[in-house]
Amino acid sequence: MQLPSVLLENAVNEFAKLPGIGKKTALRLVLHLLKQEVNEVQLFGDTIIRLRKDICFCERCNNVSDARLCAICSNHSRSKQLICVVENIRDVIAIESTQQFNGTFHVLGGVISPLDGVGPEQLAIESLVQRVVNEQVEELLFALNPTIQGDTTIYYIQRKLASVNCKITTIARGIAFGGELEYADEMTLARSIVNRLPVQQYVK
Amino acid sequence: MQLPSVLLENAVNEFAKLPGIGKKTALRLVLHLLKQEVNEVQLFGDTIIRLRKDICFCERCNNVSDARLCAICSNHSRSKQLICVVENIRDVIAIESTQQFNGTFHVLGGVISPLDGVGPEQLAIESLVQRVVNEQVEELLFALNPTIQGDTTIYYIQRKLASVNCKITTIARGIAFGGELEYADEMTLARSIVNRLPVQQYVK
Repeated sequence: MQLPSVLLENAVNEFAKLPGIGKKTALRLVLHLLKQEVNEVQLFGDTIIRLRKDICFCERCNNVSDARLCAICSNHSRSKQLICVVENIRDVIAIESTQQFNGTFHVLGGVISPLDGVGPEQLAIESLVQRVVNEQVEELLFALNPTIQGDTTIYYIQRKLASVNCKITTIARGIAFGGELEYADEMTLARSIVNRLPVQQYVK
Repeated sequence: MQLPSVLLENAVNEFAKLPGIGKKTALRLVLHLLKQEVNEVQLFGDTIIRLRKDICFCERCNNVSDARLCAICSNHSRSKQLICVVENIRDVIAIESTQQFNGTFHVLGGVISPLDGVGPEQLAIESLVQRVVNEQVEELLFALNPTIQGDTTIYYIQRKLASVNCKITTIARGIAFGGELEYADEMTLARSIVNRLPVQQYVK
């Protein structure tokens, strides 16, 4: 695809670096921006530059934040004794949108995956262990994806905390609401049978 | 979706203004940018701002350009007597990538569509007529989409040029290469039969 302008080509190349955006989509987005007012495009560019320059990561949980501590960690009504361990910021946002979790978070920044060159030292595991020890955390709730890497990470952290008196749990796996039994994979269905609940607890 | 940072939220909202990008995709793109180096994100923002501020539109054909005349109009080996009339810049890029067209272009900026409030005066029709008259254009090749609006636009321009001696053609409609006869719509198939070609001309 040959473009009629160097400026256009540069902008298309920049957009095409984003994940899931190819050259054709990039061109569509860039031509859309060309039709906008100059000050709107200026705002678009400035907002993105400012985001990257001014963003902070929470000192306690590594969540994105506008200050030294994120809104969740600095909220006194959130329990510091219950920590939900997640892989990334998107998981924090997903769990927050359920409005069912009243503890705090710890963002690992990934999971242990030797094949991708990610070892425990690349992740925020040491700071998690420190938090558990120093803040008398009562429960660590793991909300990692059910992959070998996720399970390895849970196992690794669990061993690190073997001498600490802290309950370690993981989010329930089972049939999704709105999911149909016949289309569920065997592993999920099997787990949902093994971990069955008394009906009282289910409807609570 | 509640986001943990105002900076993040602003950036997501800006991305979500782009066509075909919802809040979830916007968040994915923004989190990707957060992982990049500051200078790379700075370059991304600057490139887009510069594009909008510094882009020119060719004085002759309205194509995007880095200068007063676009690369096609200022290329002396391109025929000025053959003008391909297109709706927008994307069509110029599509036709250029075929490397089969050696004339120049004229970008209308849309097609006549009274329902959308687009009349002939909103389009670059007057300047096209001027070009045809002043530059002794021999052929106008219309490459508009085969819609009522496209056909109306061709008809309107054709009437405007009724007194001018200029051949008016349109790109061929027919079965696409790689298309299968049984899946072609009736109109396309019918047109391809009416406008059938001698085999010599086809294989040329």
